[in-house]
Amino acid sequence: MQIINDPAYMQKTAESLRLKHQLIAVVMTMGALHEGHLSLLKIAKENAGTVILTIFVNPRQFGPDEDFHRYPRPFEKDAAMAKAAGVDYLFAPDVESMYTEGFQTQVNTGDITNRFEGEKRPGHFNGMATVVLKLLMISKAHLAIFGEKDAQQLAVIKRMVRDFNLGTTIIEAPVVRNEDGLATSSRNIYLSSQERQQATVLYQGILRAKELVAQGMTETEKILEEVAAVIGSAPDATIDYTGIVDADTFAETGTLRPNAHHRLLLAVWIGSTRLIDNSILEPLEQSAAQDT
Amino acid sequence: MQIINDPAYMQKTAESLRLKHQLIAVVMTMGALHEGHLSLLKIAKENAGTVILTIFVNPRQFGPDEDFHRYPRPFEKDAAMAKAAGVDYLFAPDVESMYTEGFQTQVNTGDITNRFEGEKRPGHFNGMATVVLKLLMISKAHLAIFGEKDAQQLAVIKRMVRDFNLGTTIIEAPVVRNEDGLATSSRNIYLSSQERQQATVLYQGILRAKELVAQGMTETEKILEEVAAVIGSAPDATIDYTGIVDADTFAETGTLRPNAHHRLLLAVWIGSTRLIDNSILEPLEQSAAQDT
Repeated sequence: MQIINDPAYMQKTAESLRLKHQLIAVVMTMGALHEGHLSLLKIAKENAGTVILTIFVNPRQFGPDEDFHRYPRPFEKDAAMAKAAGVDYLFAPDVESMYTEGFQTQVNTGDITNRFEGEKRPGHFNGMATVVLKLLMISKAHLAIFGEKDAQQLAVIKRMVRDFNLGTTIIEAPVVRNEDGLATSSRNIYLSSQERQQATVLYQGILRAKELVAQGMTETEKILEEVAAVIGSAPDATIDYTGIVDADTFAETGTLRPNAHHRLLLAVWIGSTRLIDNSILEPLEQSAAQDT
Repeated sequence: MQIINDPAYMQKTAESLRLKHQLIAVVMTMGALHEGHLSLLKIAKENAGTVILTIFVNPRQFGPDEDFHRYPRPFEKDAAMAKAAGVDYLFAPDVESMYTEGFQTQVNTGDITNRFEGEKRPGHFNGMATVVLKLLMISKAHLAIFGEKDAQQLAVIKRMVRDFNLGTTIIEAPVVRNEDGLATSSRNIYLSSQERQQATVLYQGILRAKELVAQGMTETEKILEEVAAVIGSAPDATIDYTGIVDADTFAETGTLRPNAHHRLLLAVWIGSTRLIDNSILEPLEQSAAQDT
């Protein structure tokens, strides 16, 4: 595994690989690698001859009150995990080389980020999309693997790839969960052991929603009420938002439609740690058909 | 010369060319080709084995009161000129294939567009930069040739290429002028013969500025006053703006600095047609040195 810090050198290396007809897959992270990231790398290995892992804690996707400085940066451990996972190139630039003097051009992600994470974290998605665009250009990847965990991020990136004709194939990787259902996240390490136990209410909320939908419920307001009740059972849980949206446009929907691609979204504070989770909801064909 | 309308097919073609180690240059136009465009194509031919010409009248860089519908579209004539100029691929997509359903991601060009053309034409540079990014992705060009005529556009594109790590080399082509100094422009055809004569005041203003600078004048306000007097001598001329800026950042400057890259900018209405022009100003080393 080669570690590269310089964006121009990474780009030149990627260009040579392309000219040698190598298929390149990229996995973008902010480091602090966990099982979720390893699952993305596994998909990358299965789909491409060359795997580039990027580690870059991007200041432009953190808000002023967010945890940029507190964000974990265990580089040596990450590099060892990357090597073990079969990564070919670990690209880890510093902030100055990514945002050179006079930097000012940004991606504007549009209506898809007016709500949910975009509303709660102003500027987050523009900063994220900008760095994803930069990393796609630098890595010259044919394939990029992103987790469904960050569902709105995934939708924004897919939209950007189409809108800007980037030509990259985006592969969606399912959420990786602990045995009790908690989605893996770099932020889970902030949880106390009591909070860690309570954090399972997000997944329990998802299971409750799936159960209701399987029973034929299509009214999203009612489903979200029941989800809120499950989450509210944890004493240190505070709902930031819940929603049920079209999985591509992130437009909210009042009634589940048959054969549509709906997603349940959750953002919940457990103590002082904010967790997100989500799941596709598939309405029953027969019950949904009654609404049309 | 092959004419291609489909963005995906153009991109695929360009990718094959790259894999055959072909060097690709792109010239982007809105059609209505004139001597100015031909000079860009000539530079492209000199620098690359494959030349792609794009013709796309981009609705997203016209304001609501601008001439999108009135803009000339002489496609057959353009194609003949392109072929004669040695173009290999003429890429001419329609609006629907460039802005597909749900399109919403845009480039935000930043402070460089707060003034001058950016201020006068809100949204213009974001729309322009977005389509330039798309056309760079579709054409997969190693080189892109842009004219100095649209100086702020050139600065915005250079900034975007750096900020987004696009890896494209931008070549700047000098302004092409008619014998009497009027810069070639697709909009010149809107001028009546009387207006056409008066339109030379832009170039006369540039010559006056150069003369003053050669005489040692470094105060930009005084230079612009003299330029305004020259332009004001034409009865149908109305100044939209004049300015002297740093050529890279487009920040205005009060005093010409030695060894700096300054540009004089002009936008002038001649009757109901708006013309722009510009020129690099090079202060005398000895006179400029007195100010430091």
